[in-house]
Amino acid sequence: MGQLDTTRRAGCELCEQPGGMLVVRNTELRVVRVSDALHPGFYRVIWNDHVAEFSDLPQAERMRCMDAVALVESLMRVHLQPIKVNLASLGNMVPHLHWHLIARYSDDPHFPQPIWGMQQREVPAEPSFDAGKLLELDRQIQLQLG
Amino acid sequence: MGQLDTTRRAGCELCEQPGGMLVVRNTELRVVRVSDALHPGFYRVIWNDHVAEFSDLPQAERMRCMDAVALVESLMRVHLQPIKVNLASLGNMVPHLHWHLIARYSDDPHFPQPIWGMQQREVPAEPSFDAGKLLELDRQIQLQLG
Repeated sequence: MGQLDTTRRAGCELCEQPGGMLVVRNTELRVVRVSDALHPGFYRVIWNDHVAEFSDLPQAERMRCMDAVALVESLMRVHLQPIKVNLASLGNMVPHLHWHLIARYSDDPHFPQPIWGMQQREVPAEPSFDAGKLLELDRQIQLQLG
Repeated sequence: MGQLDTTRRAGCELCEQPGGMLVVRNTELRVVRVSDALHPGFYRVIWNDHVAEFSDLPQAERMRCMDAVALVESLMRVHLQPIKVNLASLGNMVPHLHWHLIARYSDDPHFPQPIWGMQQREVPAEPSFDAGKLLELDRQIQLQLG
């Protein structure tokens, strides 16, 4: 688990760096907030040990990983009130298990396309929430997962 | 559960249609294969009842949903030998819980971008696997989830 050298891969960006602004880290996983001007409500749940695919994890660990994803998603819904939350584990560039969680709004730059798709409109003049909500959300994630 | 009218929403595409070529269906969920000329190794795990977000499911159901996702992913890895599997629950257009599972290859039209991103190259002349592999994979999914 978390402390063994064998669980780290040299040259893997997510073995060597947090992968975003660290919100909370426990022995198995961490939550980071992503700085994305187009999509400010953007978090990642990153498995600490180096595994490439979701199905590389044993069932108990998969369950704890997805419990964390569901918890962060729930808190995002309460605090950011998105119209939809998008979840994705891609890893084509960094094949180390990490889940993207993105709060989506009907007037965000890409909606209803995925954030990796074609931009649909300019950034709204008024963000859907103020930055204080992200700090409060960070704090709630820390309380629940710390 | 699956048979109650209250779990269906009128006008929801995934309450009213399979959402792809049906591979297998049980009381809680179904697996469909997606016909995508650019990405032939493309399946969906669709929760039968109408819920919009992953975190709308109680933990036991979330776990069974992700057990199915992990199982299909594992079988895709064995039968299609992708370089990476991409998983995503988006639902911006159809907010009914469904997971996309996409086998990715270094020479596929979008790699390393998500399949919703900018196309990187033409479709390879030789697909990464022959169509018989999909039929065998369908059969294995049926055996394990039927």
